[in-house]
Amino acid sequence: MSEPHRGGSRLVALQLDDYGPWTTTPEPRRETDLQALQARLFADVADFFGQRDGYAFAGRFDNMVGVATQEDPAEFERLQERIRNRYPVTLSIGVGTAATPAAALRAAGEELQAAGSAQAADRREVLGHRVADGVTGDPTRVTIAHFDVVDATGSYTDRVAPTQARLRIQEAMTALASYLHTDHEAVTHFVGGDNAIAVCPPLDRTAVDGAVAHVREATGVELQAGVGHGSTAHAAGFDAKHALETCRATGQRVHGPWEVATD
Amino acid sequence: MSEPHRGGSRLVALQLDDYGPWTTTPEPRRETDLQALQARLFADVADFFGQRDGYAFAGRFDNMVGVATQEDPAEFERLQERIRNRYPVTLSIGVGTAATPAAALRAAGEELQAAGSAQAADRREVLGHRVADGVTGDPTRVTIAHFDVVDATGSYTDRVAPTQARLRIQEAMTALASYLHTDHEAVTHFVGGDNAIAVCPPLDRTAVDGAVAHVREATGVELQAGVGHGSTAHAAGFDAKHALETCRATGQRVHGPWEVATD
Amino acid sequence: MSEPHRGGSRLVALQLDDYGPWTTTPEPRRETDLQALQARLFADVADFFGQRDGYAFAGRFDNMVGVATQEDPAEFERLQERIRNRYPVTLSIGVGTAATPAAALRAAGEELQAAGSAQAADRREVLGHRVADGVTGDPTRVTIAHFDVVDATGSYTDRVAPTQARLRIQEAMTALASYLHTDHEAVTHFVGGDNAIAVCPPLDRTAVDGAVAHVREATGVELQAGVGHGSTAHAAGFDAKHALETCRATGQRVHGPWEVATD
Amino acid sequence: MSEPHRGGSRLVALQLDDYGPWTTTPEPRRETDLQALQARLFADVADFFGQRDGYAFAGRFDNMVGVATQEDPAEFERLQERIRNRYPVTLSIGVGTAATPAAALRAAGEELQAAGSAQAADRREVLGHRVADGVTGDPTRVTIAHFDVVDATGSYTDRVAPTQARLRIQEAMTALASYLHTDHEAVTHFVGGDNAIAVCPPLDRTAVDGAVAHVREATGVELQAGVGHGSTAHAAGFDAKHALETCRATGQRVHGPWEVATD
Repeated sequence: MSEPHRGGSRLVALQLDDYGPWTTTPEPRRETDLQALQARLFADVADFFGQRDGYAFAGRFDNMVGVATQEDPAEFERLQERIRNRYPVTLSIGVGTAATPAAALRAAGEELQAAGSAQAADRREVLGHRVADGVTGDPTRVTIAHFDVVDATGSYTDRVAPTQARLRIQEAMTALASYLHTDHEAVTHFVGGDNAIAVCPPLDRTAVDGAVAHVREATGVELQAGVGHGSTAHAAGFDAKHALETCRATGQRVHGPWEVATD
Repeated sequence: MSEPHRGGSRLVALQLDDYGPWTTTPEPRRETDLQALQARLFADVADFFGQRDGYAFAGRFDNMVGVATQEDPAEFERLQERIRNRYPVTLSIGVGTAATPAAALRAAGEELQAAGSAQAADRREVLGHRVADGVTGDPTRVTIAHFDVVDATGSYTDRVAPTQARLRIQEAMTALASYLHTDHEAVTHFVGGDNAIAVCPPLDRTAVDGAVAHVREATGVELQAGVGHGSTAHAAGFDAKHALETCRATGQRVHGPWEVATD
Repeated sequence: MSEPHRGGSRLVALQLDDYGPWTTTPEPRRETDLQALQARLFADVADFFGQRDGYAFAGRFDNMVGVATQEDPAEFERLQERIRNRYPVTLSIGVGTAATPAAALRAAGEELQAAGSAQAADRREVLGHRVADGVTGDPTRVTIAHFDVVDATGSYTDRVAPTQARLRIQEAMTALASYLHTDHEAVTHFVGGDNAIAVCPPLDRTAVDGAVAHVREATGVELQAGVGHGSTAHAAGFDAKHALETCRATGQRVHGPWEVATD
Repeated sequence: MSEPHRGGSRLVALQLDDYGPWTTTPEPRRETDLQALQARLFADVADFFGQRDGYAFAGRFDNMVGVATQEDPAEFERLQERIRNRYPVTLSIGVGTAATPAAALRAAGEELQAAGSAQAADRREVLGHRVADGVTGDPTRVTIAHFDVVDATGSYTDRVAPTQARLRIQEAMTALASYLHTDHEAVTHFVGGDNAIAVCPPLDRTAVDGAVAHVREATGVELQAGVGHGSTAHAAGFDAKHALETCRATGQRVHGPWEVATD
């Protein structure tokens, strides 16, 4: 049985202000320039969270996601300043604290939505923090599950066409993210290669086994997962990466120090 | 009825050499550093293709895709040099020329696979060009279809939680890419926000209508698309972006100058 | 009369490991690639210090300088990790704490030199902290003097050839840096445009007047300066920038809240 | 006796529009953000020129310098587009073609000055080409002299304090640049470490010997130099780097294939 972490989760919704219209004003901008802008801006966001032992995910690029734990929401002003001083666009940030990662990101998104439309010309650099009812204090603990595809190189990259490899992995990652979101209130992102990272409530082994089985059945792709816990996303994720190394070495499908008993 | 472009298509498979093992040697590297590295490296790849009026897609980040037309494959040595001089990793590049975009990327991938595994420690900076049987000369023409979600901001970004918005759009984009690949030999990538770009053989209107209908039925997400043609991906894509602006303005679902008669 | 700050100054010497040989191995690398590498690597260093309200200077690019105040020297491991994970080169870092900025940077340099040559193939990622005799505790205060050229745009940029403008300003900045180093134990860097920033011991007004007069006599270039004090380089520098704005507005040559009485 | 290259030289003056005021509006911006912005923007400029086998120099960062040879001036629109799409500032570009590098940069600067002040709020994205009287056609040849300090590591970096090493080298580089500008119409920039690159008219050996002797007498710093010629800055500079390697290996102070006889 899963209990929420004491203090729950804190996730961050990062949204470029009025970005869609900017990309086509006064004329559609060159696609490779937009791709490069989005990628570099996300890299700066990743650095910002990394600096604080957090995690960041590119998401849709105009809507990114960060994981912070004890971070004071006011600290994100510094990130807004950095983006404003460096790019032709600005950044709104909603911080959410709630019982689960999915609820925290929901709260973060509501904070942005309450301030105005993503495409409102007069909504710029929102910074707000929404705390779900009943949650008090800063989160103290994060659980990360790090998934990858068993023998992705041998089964896909070295064997099939690039498009097929990409689509198979993309289907698996989308199925995984949907399953973990619906059944376990986790927030899961593809992070490149054949890897996905889920920010989870405390998970028992059954939950991860279930996710691996679900993706196998839905898409035929075989995943493995390492799980870790810690006071920051980096600490938890680092343990999860080590646990995944154990899977690779031993052939186990899931590995982790389980904080929640299985029965 | 669709005829292949004279000269067909030229696509490029870009693969980081032995990247997976590097990310965990001697220990797993910090995730935000990997995210930032991948994003910035892709941005440099996008700049390189943009410089030549091509397109580039992040794909899986360790496996990227580029669209070149008349580019001499030997030119990509300059990109390999740049990556080697700037990053702790190196880049292998397979160029493929074939009748359709999907076949061209297949040929590009085979060129890499023939040179050794993506995780072979001794395979570095491959550069090769594979031309499919029966294709001669440089490609002279590209067709681009630029899709986005009808009222994505109102229907998703401003209305539902960030995870839901992302997953709905991701499902739609994956369904679109699979459909266009299987039925039309196109190579389609999500490019951020609610946008996807398909590199296509010459398409008639029916094909694009079919893709929009397929995604609506499979996922409930309503897409629109602008189509353009040109001697480079940028020229074709620029027309496609303008055509998509017409969709936004008029409510049409698909728009483009159709080079191939519908009947 | 100037007293050193209680706790003195903490400066950081950042040195690329064995960089000269790398730039010519196995063959000389393309110059624009080296320029781009150096610039981006410095930008990352600037971000790292900026994140902590410090300052960073490009210096010679293979030897950079940072200003930290209460920063724990062990924190710089995170910067070394970031560079190693992102670039084909590594970074050694010497931290120095001493009575004055010049002495602190001297101590920082000695820490690196004691660990081996900048071009020793086996000296990598040194991290050490040298505290000068008689200094205890963390520095608590920084003084920044921000200089620029009076009407640089009207006198130089808009009037003379780019090379002349650059050389005149470079001569002035070199004269300024030498004077402040020799006479006042300050560490002064050109920071672009017509700007230089000096990290100073507590300065009285006479010292800054003297520097402006010296540069006028030695090079004919007329400078102005704003001075600020604070617990971090950013706080001190922000006040210095505001003080410089006052110079621009009023025609004063130097402005600042003086912590040290003039007589 | 030196003859100008047939077709002379083509240099490029790149100037950020109205940059000074931007850095203090509405308030002074954080210094490390400005440092990072300038460095990354220059890196992109370096990439752009590198892509065309040209050279680029950071100069004052708000005023940069590029070397192009047969480049069509209209091509620089692509660089302006890239900067506009990526940064919060815009770029004006003056191209100059004249008998010598110094004259070419003078013409480039005049082109910008004629269009309005560097700090005119309404002068943005100027792009012009000024050809000096009597020059026809595109330049066909570049001469590069690449200088460094003899045993800079042993004499400076490993031996004296960072500030002293930097100031000695800076003084030498400024003296070198002034001498070559005044006596030989060359454009010389410090490029990091202990290196300077001079874009020269065809030089005989006496001229380079004279520069080395001048710097020795004026500053006590011992330089060495390799010289190269080519149809692009990269080709010439690559030969110059190889020639400098010969100096390092043999103890010669200057080396190069001399196109101009000494007597």
